[in-house]
Amino acid sequence: MSRTLVKEVPNKIGEKVTLQGWLHWKRDLGGIQFALLRDRTGIVQVVVEKGVDLPLAESCLRVSGEVVQNAKAPGGYEVLANGLEVLTPALEPSPIEIPKEEWRVNPETLLEYRYVSLRGEKARAALKVQAALVRGFRNFLDAQGFTEIYTPKIVSAGAEGGSNLFAIDYFEQRAYLAQSPQLYKQIMVGVYERVYEVAPVFRAEQHATSRHLNEYLSLDVEIGFVENEHDVIDLEEALLRAMLDEAREGAADAVGMLEVEWPNTAEMPRLEHPEARRILREELGMPVGADFNEEAERALGQWAKEKWGVDFLFVTKYPEAARPFYAYPEGDGSTRGFDLLFRGLEITSGGQRIHQYDVLVEALKKKGNDPANFAGYLEVFKYGMPPHGGFAIGAERITQKLLGLPNVRYARAFPRDRHRLTP
Amino acid sequence: MSRTLVKEVPNKIGEKVTLQGWLHWKRDLGGIQFALLRDRTGIVQVVVEKGVDLPLAESCLRVSGEVVQNAKAPGGYEVLANGLEVLTPALEPSPIEIPKEEWRVNPETLLEYRYVSLRGEKARAALKVQAALVRGFRNFLDAQGFTEIYTPKIVSAGAEGGSNLFAIDYFEQRAYLAQSPQLYKQIMVGVYERVYEVAPVFRAEQHATSRHLNEYLSLDVEIGFVENEHDVIDLEEALLRAMLDEAREGAADAVGMLEVEWPNTAEMPRLEHPEARRILREELGMPVGADFNEEAERALGQWAKEKWGVDFLFVTKYPEAARPFYAYPEGDGSTRGFDLLFRGLEITSGGQRIHQYDVLVEALKKKGNDPANFAGYLEVFKYGMPPHGGFAIGAERITQKLLGLPNVRYARAFPRDRHRLTP
Repeated sequence: MSRTLVKEVPNKIGEKVTLQGWLHWKRDLGGIQFALLRDRTGIVQVVVEKGVDLPLAESCLRVSGEVVQNAKAPGGYEVLANGLEVLTPALEPSPIEIPKEEWRVNPETLLEYRYVSLRGEKARAALKVQAALVRGFRNFLDAQGFTEIYTPKIVSAGAEGGSNLFAIDYFEQRAYLAQSPQLYKQIMVGVYERVYEVAPVFRAEQHATSRHLNEYLSLDVEIGFVENEHDVIDLEEALLRAMLDEAREGAADAVGMLEVEWPNTAEMPRLEHPEARRILREELGMPVGADFNEEAERALGQWAKEKWGVDFLFVTKYPEAARPFYAYPEGDGSTRGFDLLFRGLEITSGGQRIHQYDVLVEALKKKGNDPANFAGYLEVFKYGMPPHGGFAIGAERITQKLLGLPNVRYARAFPRDRHRLTP
Repeated sequence: MSRTLVKEVPNKIGEKVTLQGWLHWKRDLGGIQFALLRDRTGIVQVVVEKGVDLPLAESCLRVSGEVVQNAKAPGGYEVLANGLEVLTPALEPSPIEIPKEEWRVNPETLLEYRYVSLRGEKARAALKVQAALVRGFRNFLDAQGFTEIYTPKIVSAGAEGGSNLFAIDYFEQRAYLAQSPQLYKQIMVGVYERVYEVAPVFRAEQHATSRHLNEYLSLDVEIGFVENEHDVIDLEEALLRAMLDEAREGAADAVGMLEVEWPNTAEMPRLEHPEARRILREELGMPVGADFNEEAERALGQWAKEKWGVDFLFVTKYPEAARPFYAYPEGDGSTRGFDLLFRGLEITSGGQRIHQYDVLVEALKKKGNDPANFAGYLEVFKYGMPPHGGFAIGAERITQKLLGLPNVRYARAFPRDRHRLTP
């Protein structure tokens, strides 16, 4: 009585099978009952004799029966049940009708019942694609000689000076949740040259928008012995292609179900910040400052799509004013820092970093930071740090834009925002 | 002038190469100078003419020269430098002499200077082996149809009732750091049947011992549609073999350098708790209670090694008193919960979980918990949860015991303990 998976059913026409899964949907036609059984690999139609008492939807079932062809059934086959065991009955009707689930622009209802709404086909598929993107990230970097690292999330100070930090009671001390592994991944470049980390980061940002999360998954990369930021961008380009390939191949069912409009990965142009600013001002009539806001990024993404047919756009040479202290300065007010816009949403910040102790101390002061507060970080730069750079990709944001989700929260299993701490 | 990696040097005898890395060690013999250059792939001897001013050890260098054979050099070859560029000079002598670094029973000095001590060959190798173990974990589970999940680390309550939690100021609310993804991975079994997570967990344990960390990497697994806990143990056995295989093959250099005594992975016997307790009391003269302390686990591990020649020992059928509320009760005071001892150290807790709503409510009450405090968790059990189980492997502990490290802190890049928040 070994278990057959739903996806194996079409190869078992004429055979007896035993399936396990959830009662996705049921319909009583009087003389006969139809049920849809869902397992991790798919959904199959099951024909159940009248008189058999089907439990509430979402109950866990074990179904035995024969696989037969039926041109009217979904996929052209179904299972004629001759045994049906309720493994775990659902006790109440699901608060969300799983078969009818759709994204909603206001996500609150779906998120409130996330523990069942995640069972919906689209919700399941979206996070399956995300897992494939992350797998593609790791596999590509492993093959390039990178080492995976696991850095602390409980830290004594912030990576970028101290704002937007969640405070923790750490025994007798005050500690914080890491808003980025930035300083640690730089230290680890001194150890392994090439490192990456896949881990949550925490931002105590007050605003609640459709693109912000207070806890998200950061895909962090740092690489030593680079010439300039273009080595870093070259790496990210190749990495993004590998991630998207893995999503398309490794999560093909999910990608197909979500009818994803695949992005153009052939070209990812690089636009210098002054030119991007000129385009925004002169061609798009948007007066912008050193940093671009959400609206400006969206406009720039749309402009690049219309002008060049591209979905990915690197904006390079950000001015110092719009970058953290560790951005490598060019000496003319600009830095080797870049952002990556994907369909008009910033999904990456990156760049070459300062690797010289003295330059770093000056840069800290210039931003109004007391170098004494960064002593632990600065120490490592006394002992030979190579020229290096890196970037971080927001896993939820790339998932959101790839899949066209109306809110970034749908790209996280259990999102945390200004007001949401549960489930 | 493309870069040659140190490991490629032996294949370039007679050729000109350009290397980049750190000055690991130097020695001036008067007429000639020897240097060891270290990059992410190894260490090579470089011969430098007299008169060339070598910087402090740990400086970053670019070295050009010819690869020649020399029977007296390590490996039988060396590089005769004709160009040497200091990319980044070290500004001070390293507080730890990297080439002479050894594990110390008291780790404080090495940890204080972790940002440089991690560059030591053993330190680098240990975390490289850990990354390979984690890679083996993921690759095996991916191939078995598991989905990787990313669950929240900021939670509204503890998974096991509320002790040992770090509190966070979350805007106007009180929140906590997750001590385990337990409840979330169970919810996700309802979505994907088979899930895993690799993420930090946080335990506000007061004690500081050589086997405890307040933040560690938990390798979590949960699987649905199991018959009993032996399905879960079967999975963990196969998984451990895959992890260890990946460490031995994927981190072969590191494993070789650390001279690892490889464990017996062929047999991992299962000993029921009452029998383990009898052995401890009668054969080893250790009076023990429902749970086994550190000393008892060590004795049991040693007993199993001497008696059966095994390194891994599952202790099954733990009594309810020694298990969390969600352990599946057998009805006789025992549960389907198990521990895994590796060389006498608990590296895993696992078991079958309760999947029925009513049983779970009773179990919560029996442990003195108010079910109302677990409402969010309980909800999902109203909607059909399959029989399921799982386990968590402590990444640092398995690394520590595999490599014979004197302290679990050496198995974490930047450990956090009762007193240590930096670097």
